Amino acid sequence: MARSLGQMFKGFLRLGSGLTTRTPCPPGPGSTHRASLLCTTAALQSFLFPKPRDLSLPNSSWGPDMMRLYEHYNSLCEVETEGEKQPGPWRRLPSYNRILKYATGGVYLSKIIQSKARLFTRNIKQQGAAFEYVVFVNKEEQKCVCVFQAGHLLEGPPGHVHGGAIATMIDSVAGTHATYLSGLVLTANLNINYRSPISLGSTVVLESFLDKKEDRKTFISCKVTSADGSKLHTEATALFLSITVSNIIGM
Amino acid sequence: MARSLGQMFKGFLRLGSGLTTRTPCPPGPGSTHRASLLCTTAALQSFLFPKPRDLSLPNSSWGPDMMRLYEHYNSLCEVETEGEKQPGPWRRLPSYNRILKYATGGVYLSKIIQSKARLFTRNIKQQGAAFEYVVFVNKEEQKCVCVFQAGHLLEGPPGHVHGGAIATMIDSVAGTHATYLSGLVLTANLNINYRSPISLGSTVVLESFLDKKEDRKTFISCKVTSADGSKLHTEATALFLSITVSNIIGM
Repeated sequence: MARSLGQMFKGFLRLGSGLTTRTPCPPGPGSTHRASLLCTTAALQSFLFPKPRDLSLPNSSWGPDMMRLYEHYNSLCEVETEGEKQPGPWRRLPSYNRILKYATGGVYLSKIIQSKARLFTRNIKQQGAAFEYVVFVNKEEQKCVCVFQAGHLLEGPPGHVHGGAIATMIDSVAGTHATYLSGLVLTANLNINYRSPISLGSTVVLESFLDKKEDRKTFISCKVTSADGSKLHTEATALFLSITVSNIIGM
Repeated sequence: MARSLGQMFKGFLRLGSGLTTRTPCPPGPGSTHRASLLCTTAALQSFLFPKPRDLSLPNSSWGPDMMRLYEHYNSLCEVETEGEKQPGPWRRLPSYNRILKYATGGVYLSKIIQSKARLFTRNIKQQGAAFEYVVFVNKEEQKCVCVFQAGHLLEGPPGHVHGGAIATMIDSVAGTHATYLSGLVLTANLNINYRSPISLGSTVVLESFLDKKEDRKTFISCKVTSADGSKLHTEATALFLSITVSNIIGM
């Protein structure tokens, strides 16, 4: 019953790339009954469970800063050594408007979730209007980087991003990082110092670092800087507690 | 130039009730040129600047807990003493999808804000889908209460409210409280302890209390409990710094 988010997360990542290949149907006349059945099943599955859209890939709303930083980290996800392409130090994490619907345990978990629920950071369809972001992780350095472009629907102080929207991104990035390191977690504490407001429409960089791990506790620190790194906008620490899926079901 | 949010806030509240009365047009045949011009100006103003909708009033998405708590605090906004109705200890604060567009300084301020920007907590039109809330303030007790119903678009952990959405409501309620007490402020720190997750669709109560005021600093504490008060979901402290409008323009 209890399964770590590490397992689910792997499933979720696998699915991110696995579904990019569609099962081709064998030609009609020569097809066996079994092949035909497989084709029908695949088509039905594709109809019932359409391929989720990875929302961390570039779209037309992404500005120059967002694109430049995306391309920088994306280029470090694959390196060429002696003419051969190898996985690089960074890895881009895909992002959907529901996480667990597409996880390994999704079929079971989806039964306990309202079907219309949507991940808070991905709940607005209009591109560029709210949270545009992409997360990269560096396993060796135990570090995460998120490039975040703040849309016009995130307003707090006039012309600037709401403190709650900044807190949301910090919770999401640090939480993703803690999940990557420790499996399924819940946020126990967020302590956020707002140093300088962020203008609506601008792109900022969130960096999260592992401070320490103690039993069920994962301590992460996070900072938000301007796209060129010259201005510190926000600093935060976060504490996450490891839990199991049965903890969630029993919540 | 510099004006406190206290002034703007009063204007904002005044407008909340002031705009409920529409200017009647005098009858055509007997109208003077001046009266006709006034009528045309009022009609044009009403067309260009339609009456904003107060989003803190009940709608069909509000569940029994939300309605019960709203009616409880609303009944305390007006009390009957010796047959006469008097203002009660509590006051309901109206809420719009843009704050400063409708403030006293709105005409000036709106020039510096992207016209399509929307307040983060009011950026989704579909009733009941995201943040449904109403804030009441008690001047004498220096206390604020917010009744908050969490919609299905605020998901974080499966079936539960995102930590960032909870942080957003804490920032909003404590920030509204600090503004009420100290005029224009910006969030400097949020320290949030998540004790127990909040189910999607449920109604919770946020209470904020003034801890102390020191020069430009306003210290607020806030707790989030279940609708019946039996369960503590979240505890937080918040620090706000007083600023002026010129600070915002220069941000």
